[in-house]
Amino acid sequence: MDALHTDLYQLTMAAGYFHRGMTSRVATCELFVRRLPSHRRFLVAMGLDRLVRYLEGLRFTDEEIAYLGALPALADAMTPAFRDYLRGFRFRGDVWAMPEGTVFFANEPLVRVTAPLIEAQLIETFALSVINHATTIASKAARVILAAGDAGVVEFGTRRAHPEAAIDAARAAYAAGCVGTSNVEAGMRFGIPVLGTAAHMWTMAHPTEQAAFESYVAVFPNATLLLIDTYDTLTGAARAAAVARDKLKGVRLDSGDLGALSVAVRGILDAAGCASAKIVASGDLNEHRIAELRRAGAPIDLYGVGTDLVTSIDAPSLGGVYKLVEIGGVEPGAERTPIAKFSEGKATLPGAHQVHRFRGPGGELARDVLALDSEPAGPDAEPLLAPVMRRGARVAPPEGLGAIRARVRAQLDALPEPLRRLDDAPGDAPFEAEVSPALRALVDAVRARVAPGAA
Amino acid sequence: MDALHTDLYQLTMAAGYFHRGMTSRVATCELFVRRLPSHRRFLVAMGLDRLVRYLEGLRFTDEEIAYLGALPALADAMTPAFRDYLRGFRFRGDVWAMPEGTVFFANEPLVRVTAPLIEAQLIETFALSVINHATTIASKAARVILAAGDAGVVEFGTRRAHPEAAIDAARAAYAAGCVGTSNVEAGMRFGIPVLGTAAHMWTMAHPTEQAAFESYVAVFPNATLLLIDTYDTLTGAARAAAVARDKLKGVRLDSGDLGALSVAVRGILDAAGCASAKIVASGDLNEHRIAELRRAGAPIDLYGVGTDLVTSIDAPSLGGVYKLVEIGGVEPGAERTPIAKFSEGKATLPGAHQVHRFRGPGGELARDVLALDSEPAGPDAEPLLAPVMRRGARVAPPEGLGAIRARVRAQLDALPEPLRRLDDAPGDAPFEAEVSPALRALVDAVRARVAPGAA
Repeated sequence: MDALHTDLYQLTMAAGYFHRGMTSRVATCELFVRRLPSHRRFLVAMGLDRLVRYLEGLRFTDEEIAYLGALPALADAMTPAFRDYLRGFRFRGDVWAMPEGTVFFANEPLVRVTAPLIEAQLIETFALSVINHATTIASKAARVILAAGDAGVVEFGTRRAHPEAAIDAARAAYAAGCVGTSNVEAGMRFGIPVLGTAAHMWTMAHPTEQAAFESYVAVFPNATLLLIDTYDTLTGAARAAAVARDKLKGVRLDSGDLGALSVAVRGILDAAGCASAKIVASGDLNEHRIAELRRAGAPIDLYGVGTDLVTSIDAPSLGGVYKLVEIGGVEPGAERTPIAKFSEGKATLPGAHQVHRFRGPGGELARDVLALDSEPAGPDAEPLLAPVMRRGARVAPPEGLGAIRARVRAQLDALPEPLRRLDDAPGDAPFEAEVSPALRALVDAVRARVAPGAA
Repeated sequence: MDALHTDLYQLTMAAGYFHRGMTSRVATCELFVRRLPSHRRFLVAMGLDRLVRYLEGLRFTDEEIAYLGALPALADAMTPAFRDYLRGFRFRGDVWAMPEGTVFFANEPLVRVTAPLIEAQLIETFALSVINHATTIASKAARVILAAGDAGVVEFGTRRAHPEAAIDAARAAYAAGCVGTSNVEAGMRFGIPVLGTAAHMWTMAHPTEQAAFESYVAVFPNATLLLIDTYDTLTGAARAAAVARDKLKGVRLDSGDLGALSVAVRGILDAAGCASAKIVASGDLNEHRIAELRRAGAPIDLYGVGTDLVTSIDAPSLGGVYKLVEIGGVEPGAERTPIAKFSEGKATLPGAHQVHRFRGPGGELARDVLALDSEPAGPDAEPLLAPVMRRGARVAPPEGLGAIRARVRAQLDALPEPLRRLDDAPGDAPFEAEVSPALRALVDAVRARVAPGAA
């Protein structure tokens, strides 16, 4: 299952390791981001649960092996022995990772995999794919949620994303703090609250707006949410209040000057006895427009955010990479060879790592230190990576979305003010993890060993 | 199957239509893009095959109906009669569409659905989702392919996209003219050529680059493609030629000044008797960088394009919309009421439409006319929308990717020069479809009917 969800070269190299007798060698690889994308001052780790489910279920079916056997690029390597190997393939490695919802920064590993070389290699593409996508959405959602303050944010972007990506985007957005999604499948699959009103088509399918509202109230007397901007928003608000009266749960504005309209609509609803009806706003919203509306005091209860959220439109890709950092056994006493690349712009840090997070007196994020996994964290530091899989099996049941949401909330609350800003201010420097003295010493030692001659 | 892959409000409205006795009314909806995204001078229609498969298979399972019954938002509406309706739900409408690979522009419908109101409504979200995603990727791929000229483009972006989105992106990119993908699952699912070399990890897992190359040749004597930039690209090129000799199928450069390096590598390979070895280049490529490399005469045979292609990074979302254009029966003599919205920036054209394309004397795209579907196309015009489904069944077998690729090739070749440019030049105006006189007259008639009082 899922075994072919990868780049061809992972299979080519897997075959190569197999035929060169390198199957029993153990490798450690780490997934990290070299630089924060533009417009991002922090990232929110997401996608781990899907990655673990992939690793648990990873199998090559007979049909898949037959397909690989017919590929010219693999023809040399698809011997009966390698086919048998693929048939019995399971992921049996160890995984450490930051729990979903952890705030992190450049160069901090969020997933660390220690496994036989072939296994560590084969999973690279899928691991990057799920973590890059979910982390991109969660990180964008966190900005929108910070901007919305005590108003709620609903993920409305399904139509602007691939159908399956939309479902995982809804999960990532909810995990990051959205109050729900419009995506019904995501609701069923993940237990996320599903929210929605009506579309303009409902109104246009009736002879008049009055008829459309009456029709809606007749069907949904206990869940009346009316879209009021099809013709004229203020007329629509008065009509919604007149038709639904105290049964009106809410209205949605989807166009026009949402700031001014929301104030006027609130007045109309309150005067008509619909004080408990909520105002939902949508239409090309993002963190900047929401911040502007909040500064202007717009009485909007829920913001529906679509396109900008599910495409992370200002930072649509995340450059997560997955790099070999160590070769050698994990057992006590086994030889471990730290590995690093020193090429310009693509350097990696040797060895298996842990991130130690230090907090200030008020609990706020103070500094992160990149350390070797063998370094003790000390009493004041919180190690961010925790064991997730041991020999291919989960060490604990999956976390619920509630726990992940609480983590994000706590971590956003602990962000120092400069990191919470939507835009760079003069003099802002990115938050960067320090390198521990022991790791620094290892870098120097490996650099000395890997002279150009080693090539 | 797939029935919950939608926004909640589609189901709310569906329940509303059902309970208001509107199930037998017929609606026509059209999917189009109001404006071309920035950096796009044309779009390439894609995603229709997936949409049709969705429509063919659309069912509500008992488990899905039970889930809907438990949603507070639908509690009022989930009566036994509506549950029965959902249980028997099938898409039984007619679909007309531009074939995949058709070049199109703003306001031109690429899909037209005529179906009972509930069916036409329910499918909106999924239709937008698949068409928006696939069209976004195909349109970006077309730009990259135009830039690459007679060099090949390989889609390498799986790790930068959601795992399922990556597979459909590989299909869209190949359909638009890429020579293949690195995504193995896409290869198996769609019969796309799968291409790849090796990663830096292969080299780093060996004690030296020499050992890594020897190891690769030993396993893949007939498919030797070596990544040569792990340490020093020129040394790597000489070493690849020395190790693989006339068996060297190709080398990949993934970093550095690809223009200068490719020239030097070509020289090294030719001098070493590896004249038939191809040069593959990758690393943050896009249409602009490829155009620059080609202008400089870089002897690169294949360009691997990843992030920028699968995220369509300069235009990551497509604002496709799906709008009601007519209510009424499709049978001859049935009453048809054209519907339009006249709100600023969100206006729609009433009636069911066809796009008539006119060509110049050399076969080049000359003009498009938006016409009513009842208008004859005339001998000089090619109607772009063709019937795809009739009463919920395909009217013809799915097109093969070869036919779609040939269509894209022909349509790109027929683009007038200004539309082929990567960037706007001074005085460039977007290509826009004209509106036929009959459609113009209908707009005026409907506008007169839909006075503000109609609200």
